[in-house]
Amino acid sequence: MSVHVQKFGGTSVGTPERIKHVARLILDTKKKTGDQMVIVVSAMGHTTDELIELASKVSSVRNNREMDMLLATGEQVSISLLCMAIHELGAKAISLTGFQARIKAEQVYSKARILQIETEKIKKLLDEDNIVVIAGFQGVADDTEIVTLGRGGSDTTAVALAASLNANVCDIYTDVEGIYTADPRIVPNAKKLKEVSYEEMLELASLGAQVLHPRAVECASSYDTIIHVRSTFSENVGTFVKGVEDLEVKNAISGVAIDKNQAKLALLQVPDKPGVAAKLFTAIADGGYIVDMIIQSVQESQNNDISFTVAKDDLEAVSMITKKVAEEIGCKAVVSDSNVAKVSIVGAGMVGHAGVAASMFKALGDAGINIQMISTSEIKVSCIVDLDECEHAARVIHNVLIPSDIAQ
Amino acid sequence: MSVHVQKFGGTSVGTPERIKHVARLILDTKKKTGDQMVIVVSAMGHTTDELIELASKVSSVRNNREMDMLLATGEQVSISLLCMAIHELGAKAISLTGFQARIKAEQVYSKARILQIETEKIKKLLDEDNIVVIAGFQGVADDTEIVTLGRGGSDTTAVALAASLNANVCDIYTDVEGIYTADPRIVPNAKKLKEVSYEEMLELASLGAQVLHPRAVECASSYDTIIHVRSTFSENVGTFVKGVEDLEVKNAISGVAIDKNQAKLALLQVPDKPGVAAKLFTAIADGGYIVDMIIQSVQESQNNDISFTVAKDDLEAVSMITKKVAEEIGCKAVVSDSNVAKVSIVGAGMVGHAGVAASMFKALGDAGINIQMISTSEIKVSCIVDLDECEHAARVIHNVLIPSDIAQ
Repeated sequence: MSVHVQKFGGTSVGTPERIKHVARLILDTKKKTGDQMVIVVSAMGHTTDELIELASKVSSVRNNREMDMLLATGEQVSISLLCMAIHELGAKAISLTGFQARIKAEQVYSKARILQIETEKIKKLLDEDNIVVIAGFQGVADDTEIVTLGRGGSDTTAVALAASLNANVCDIYTDVEGIYTADPRIVPNAKKLKEVSYEEMLELASLGAQVLHPRAVECASSYDTIIHVRSTFSENVGTFVKGVEDLEVKNAISGVAIDKNQAKLALLQVPDKPGVAAKLFTAIADGGYIVDMIIQSVQESQNNDISFTVAKDDLEAVSMITKKVAEEIGCKAVVSDSNVAKVSIVGAGMVGHAGVAASMFKALGDAGINIQMISTSEIKVSCIVDLDECEHAARVIHNVLIPSDIAQ
Repeated sequence: MSVHVQKFGGTSVGTPERIKHVARLILDTKKKTGDQMVIVVSAMGHTTDELIELASKVSSVRNNREMDMLLATGEQVSISLLCMAIHELGAKAISLTGFQARIKAEQVYSKARILQIETEKIKKLLDEDNIVVIAGFQGVADDTEIVTLGRGGSDTTAVALAASLNANVCDIYTDVEGIYTADPRIVPNAKKLKEVSYEEMLELASLGAQVLHPRAVECASSYDTIIHVRSTFSENVGTFVKGVEDLEVKNAISGVAIDKNQAKLALLQVPDKPGVAAKLFTAIADGGYIVDMIIQSVQESQNNDISFTVAKDDLEAVSMITKKVAEEIGCKAVVSDSNVAKVSIVGAGMVGHAGVAASMFKALGDAGINIQMISTSEIKVSCIVDLDECEHAARVIHNVLIPSDIAQ
């Protein structure tokens, strides 16, 4: 008998009525497919935010262990309520916390990674005809410690379970119809994609398309698990995320993404000595901060500039590290700018289409939008532009580069 | 180093401000006594009721396993927030769920009893200078199942921990100043007791004095753990609950209690054959219902009546069982009355004071209150009276029987 994994996000289980709707959806799928059902749920609606707010009223000191203890309750509430709703419809269901489901994770509070899932118990419960409802976003470390996987971690739980249980498909139910060529709130003629490769999805997710968590996509890619992103509130087929070799059509460009959580730092007139860049970026990495784009521009003199981007939230901390290194290496000045955003195009079919990047730059140039930094990968071209111009930039690029027949 | 256990109820941790107050109280005690501190907390304020309400919106089917899964989150929220509040004050604290604290319990969902507490982990954390904050009301069964101990179970958690850890004292912090000779809302001149024996407390708790859960008192009695019931919101000394041999003064009467959760059932004209009562009360016990008072009154003829009381909530179910048995044994009629209440006097010094019961009956008679049923034990006399008259009855008895110098 096949296993079918379905994940329902916080909006999908946001009210008692919605939980009952989700229970019906699950039983419909079970009836249609005859599959054994494993369900992953997030915390209801804004529960997680409310718990964080409650914590902030009690203490200004953040303790990740206690925060995980607190936040893990959100999913525990959802799993029990969903089971009750399934019971109400006359089917068998049993809930498992991350600990009970043996979702073993690193002992890194608030952002643990799943190491392994011991599936014996889940399989036994499935064989006893239970719908097994598992708390997303949480795991167990060192056999007893409750750890959370960080925001969006429920997606990862679902995909990891699908991989461990050799599920046919992992449905990620959410409040949108699937993956779009751009955020429809920003680009009104954005289209829903029929399918997209893991690599493209990964770039889109990392670049700010909020639908699927990057770690979930990575995990699906590693185990070749097909993800079906679809809406809890309609019966429409959504978007399938799968291996590039399984795609029916490779789109040159699958999507345009905006990431507003960007800030730019620049060291001016860096002495042209070996090891300077290494020193800087090692110091930043040691602080636990991730640098995104890096540009080193050689000037006429012996000095050059180094520019790079980090997440906006990290700007202050990275600035301090950078200034310290700048002093040590005798660099003239450090400047920062948080008024920037990253606009990117992503496409598995971009490889070999030399003209794509050029078309993007031309579209931006024609619209009078200044490009501050550029970075490229095999399936992506990103430009840093002014924060105020990024949405306009996305619309311009989408109009020029996304073919009208791209979606289903 | 001595261990000191403190338990804070739902009202005591009902808001972020109160949680911060509790954190200060704990650190004050730690500083004053130098003891290692183990803290037990209940769910915040009305959390448990809100969760039950949420469940009722999702399903009309009650599943005790999923209800325990749901309710256990309430205490988990409290323990994490209290630890954060303690961290804010600069001290070390770590929270443990029932599972993590190895509070092993029966696998009986929603009313498990604690079987054993494996204290190695708690002791290790205490030795590392942590204040250990443990979720009340919950335990672990079969190594992974989350079970709750039923309402008031947090008291039991605290006392069981105090017993297991050989604590000097178990402070039960609540929203009243201690144990009173009667409910001050009903009997305005009720007085706070300085001390009361386990046996008296057990009767008072069973009889509707809501302050301490009977199972907690039983547990304290078994291990000779002294309980100090006191208010979170004042610094006054409360009431000590201890062994009768340790009492400084044995009061003839320690308190007057009212239990409104009573209903009366009567089988009329029961054929006077052996085994009839056994048949009835076995059937009721098999249904899981507890019978309180039983009176068999022999009539002139060969038939007699059997009257008994049960909890008001159980009346409907017990009525059905009783009617079925009544038919089988050829009994004429079953009548029930839920408009009754039990008024009791309790006192460890009552033994040998033959006049106490008589004084109670006289006080009620002088006040024109009709006594429907009577039961007595060594330290208790209970009367069933009209529900509407029970509060008046309590005041009358208190005035006549409680000496004015009883309390501290």
